[in-house]
Amino acid sequence: MVRASAGLSLLKGHRVLLRSDLHSLQGRVALLSGGGSGHEPAHAGYIGSGMLSAAVAGGVFASPPPASILAAILCLHNAGASGVLLIVKNYTGDRLNFGLAAEQARNHGVAVDMVIVADDCAFNQPSKAGRRGLCGTVFAHKLAGALAEEGCSLDQIVTKMTEVLKGIGTLGVSLSPCSVPGCLPSFELPPGDMELGLGIHGEPGIKRSKLASADEVVKTMIDHMTNPDSQSHLPLKSGDNVVVCVNNLGALSCLEMAVVTRAAINCLEVRGVVVARVMSGSFMTSLEMAGVSLTLMKADQDVLRLFDAKTSAPAWPNLSSVCVSGRDYTTDPPAMGTRPQDDTHSEGPLSPVMRKALENVCSTLLQQQEELNSLDRAAGDGDCGNTHAQAAKAIQEWLQSHVVPGCPGQLLSVLAGLVQEKMGGSSGALYSLFLTAAAGHVTEGQSNATAWARALHAGTQAMRRYGGADPGDRTMLDALCPAVDELMKLTTSPPGGEMAVLQAAVQKAASGAESTRDLIARAGRASYIAAERVTLPDPGAVAVAAIFRAVLQALEGRQ
Amino acid sequence: MVRASAGLSLLKGHRVLLRSDLHSLQGRVALLSGGGSGHEPAHAGYIGSGMLSAAVAGGVFASPPPASILAAILCLHNAGASGVLLIVKNYTGDRLNFGLAAEQARNHGVAVDMVIVADDCAFNQPSKAGRRGLCGTVFAHKLAGALAEEGCSLDQIVTKMTEVLKGIGTLGVSLSPCSVPGCLPSFELPPGDMELGLGIHGEPGIKRSKLASADEVVKTMIDHMTNPDSQSHLPLKSGDNVVVCVNNLGALSCLEMAVVTRAAINCLEVRGVVVARVMSGSFMTSLEMAGVSLTLMKADQDVLRLFDAKTSAPAWPNLSSVCVSGRDYTTDPPAMGTRPQDDTHSEGPLSPVMRKALENVCSTLLQQQEELNSLDRAAGDGDCGNTHAQAAKAIQEWLQSHVVPGCPGQLLSVLAGLVQEKMGGSSGALYSLFLTAAAGHVTEGQSNATAWARALHAGTQAMRRYGGADPGDRTMLDALCPAVDELMKLTTSPPGGEMAVLQAAVQKAASGAESTRDLIARAGRASYIAAERVTLPDPGAVAVAAIFRAVLQALEGRQ
Repeated sequence: MVRASAGLSLLKGHRVLLRSDLHSLQGRVALLSGGGSGHEPAHAGYIGSGMLSAAVAGGVFASPPPASILAAILCLHNAGASGVLLIVKNYTGDRLNFGLAAEQARNHGVAVDMVIVADDCAFNQPSKAGRRGLCGTVFAHKLAGALAEEGCSLDQIVTKMTEVLKGIGTLGVSLSPCSVPGCLPSFELPPGDMELGLGIHGEPGIKRSKLASADEVVKTMIDHMTNPDSQSHLPLKSGDNVVVCVNNLGALSCLEMAVVTRAAINCLEVRGVVVARVMSGSFMTSLEMAGVSLTLMKADQDVLRLFDAKTSAPAWPNLSSVCVSGRDYTTDPPAMGTRPQDDTHSEGPLSPVMRKALENVCSTLLQQQEELNSLDRAAGDGDCGNTHAQAAKAIQEWLQSHVVPGCPGQLLSVLAGLVQEKMGGSSGALYSLFLTAAAGHVTEGQSNATAWARALHAGTQAMRRYGGADPGDRTMLDALCPAVDELMKLTTSPPGGEMAVLQAAVQKAASGAESTRDLIARAGRASYIAAERVTLPDPGAVAVAAIFRAVLQALEGRQ
Repeated sequence: MVRASAGLSLLKGHRVLLRSDLHSLQGRVALLSGGGSGHEPAHAGYIGSGMLSAAVAGGVFASPPPASILAAILCLHNAGASGVLLIVKNYTGDRLNFGLAAEQARNHGVAVDMVIVADDCAFNQPSKAGRRGLCGTVFAHKLAGALAEEGCSLDQIVTKMTEVLKGIGTLGVSLSPCSVPGCLPSFELPPGDMELGLGIHGEPGIKRSKLASADEVVKTMIDHMTNPDSQSHLPLKSGDNVVVCVNNLGALSCLEMAVVTRAAINCLEVRGVVVARVMSGSFMTSLEMAGVSLTLMKADQDVLRLFDAKTSAPAWPNLSSVCVSGRDYTTDPPAMGTRPQDDTHSEGPLSPVMRKALENVCSTLLQQQEELNSLDRAAGDGDCGNTHAQAAKAIQEWLQSHVVPGCPGQLLSVLAGLVQEKMGGSSGALYSLFLTAAAGHVTEGQSNATAWARALHAGTQAMRRYGGADPGDRTMLDALCPAVDELMKLTTSPPGGEMAVLQAAVQKAASGAESTRDLIARAGRASYIAAERVTLPDPGAVAVAAIFRAVLQALEGRQ
């Protein structure tokens, strides 16, 4: 942590991390916390302006030695701190070791005091040792840090924290134990069971039950945490404001954490509690335990001001200071109009020939359905014909109940919509891309051969750009690209006339498709098949050639 | 995520999150990213000022539908953005779906462009589909976001990002697969094996090997990532500056992440590479995969400025903008002097009686060693006598080679040091606390009966405060507290004389110890034993009574 975080410094000879800008403690109260390791990012991750001044780490789950605690206190004192506050989780070992160091520091003339965090809500009747210190400690670091940054005295901070700590409660639940490195898991938990109220040192909890939904588990937790019959409950009533910490005990996925976070917000809001802030992530972990703890802190405006104050601590999250409850968290979608295929269009001079061409394309694709499937069985999943037939049937159906718009761009948008919705798969996306990119280039006023050539070229470029394949990769581009290259001759008044160019383009598409027999697949599904097994032409390219031929036949019929 | 983060807003009817302050996009380039779910906090966690304007989520590991991508683009356009940049990870599905939405948006008159992130360094010879997009995407979000915030145009951002992306490389390693919810794990990996170069969708990697140390694994990874023989390597030479992202793929503990982070920094520095910044945490996960990826980004001053720029994105960490390499990250420990037991002391009038008292205490404790052990066997682990004997022997040894200081406070500090070091256990910490807290109250000039009474009272209070037990809890306090209460009569000129008070105090200690027979243990180890099994007095209390008696005998001998 010290290597990665330029705001931290390692105290030589000790497992103590300090702010690297110790000089800024001059005249302020310094804050020291710590405890056993295995709870990262606690406590060193909370070192920085506005939070801790230093942290002492023991071994995994073991209290740190008093000599290191004392060294840290003296270091902060020597830096000019007006006093040192120790923030200690309520475990006997930590209380004794921090307490001993505190007494020794007093004998060195240091003004030192201690607050004990005991936020555990697990036990209805806590033992004499009291409630354990859990993730609420992170709130204590934040609030005390903000008070120190504001220049409060040691006494003021202790008084305020003593009051604030009464309003903090935590409860954990886990789907797995954790293992101290080199040791066996700390308890056994069969798959499908969960453990409620466990500690952060692998101590088992208060109740074991069958796994339930996040909403149910969170409700059980909050019911238990706020149950007035429990001596360690957090008194919480409708109208109260709370800050919520949803803490990953180690190995939950971020997606699971988000599910629990939503459940916690909803559960609290149902009780009329105002959720002022939420932090969700890994804050006080228990090694690799797949569990979560909930911490609630009652928060008035004063507490929220301290919570929202800036800090440079590396483990503090980037939070908004807007109240979570009560805000409108939705945005209305943009007006996207109807689908192009549902729009009302008006016919034009080109409508009849375009209808004829489409009808030809559709009947051709339906005729070739089995041939295309057969080609695809050799190199893919055998559904290429079906996919194209789905598109053809969708277009046929649309043609039965709609006029063909006089604006070619509108027709291409309609086709793009139909294909995107009905064809499916990568082919559907690629054809839809082609048609969408082409649509902008042909309008009612600009629909000559040049415009069509440019439209097909733009469509092809989009297909290449987003699809990531090139001619020679054994895809539909091997038929499409040579044909479109030929069609581009239409843009420069071809000497042989437009029809000759069209015929040549259709020929290029056919020979391009045939050439794929000898190509090694480098894109698409066929690229996963050994090259020697693929000796037939690519079905996508064959389909493209067939479409070109069908359009030509329609145009020839017109002439 | 949208419920917990007040900076985010949900686009109704879509799995799209947007900045809740869309108005601030007026006249700026908006940034949209997204992809399959399961990579949280990507991509929604990177929404905020200085990063993304919106993110679209598909199902787990599935590309989002083009209609939602288009809705997001139009929303940003309608908010007044001067253009929309799509940041897309290099997967065919994402390329096609984002591409289709981009083309549709163009037809709506939106200025839209796309950058493809392809930072995977796994394959020496990537397939036609190219290198996969991995955690480097997070760097792309950050840098493009900072450029947009600075007011750069769409073209300027695309140009800069195209250049920056060439200097980003990522490689992953994992100890476990992940499971799409409801499905079996994506691949099998026996315990003790690791998989190098895997993707973020559960795709297996390029090499499987036996688990090695973090240092070895990281070296293998960086060697592979920078190997010039690989077509997907990152060219990296001595003197280069890099930003490093150590990314938790899901279920690694924070402690493990810190070990890998240190290994990465060391490995790069050994090669002469300057590690400018480090981020370590969960940034682009793969559900609950127990693995880690390393992303390196070559960084000049311009890149660092963009990297360091402020952002409100909830998943962006709280980073320092100081260079990681080359800084002195250690602090010298404070001068703590020698241990009190090693200090040179000078004798005084009280030295002989204090030596006699100590000798009596030590021999008494050694005589009672077996009795104390026997009492402890009934209620604890049977070593109470041994623990006290260790302290007694340490004090005897010290007495043989040292003078007893005339200042009682110095002697108490010596004893505190000896007991802390040699006695061990909670008893050692508690006695040390008692002696340390008492030490400040008796000096050479202030050593009358009143001062001693106050010292013992302060020690007792410290023991109660930090140890958390009270009289009646069946601990040494049941002997100590009544005795000290009696001794406090010394502070008010007792009518019967000082010696009578002392004798009464010793009697109180003895009767207090005897009374613990009838007490239920509420603190210490005996509190874990069923009450009916404990019928003998508490050994800690018996030891205290014995110590009081031994001291009294020494004082009586003096008179």
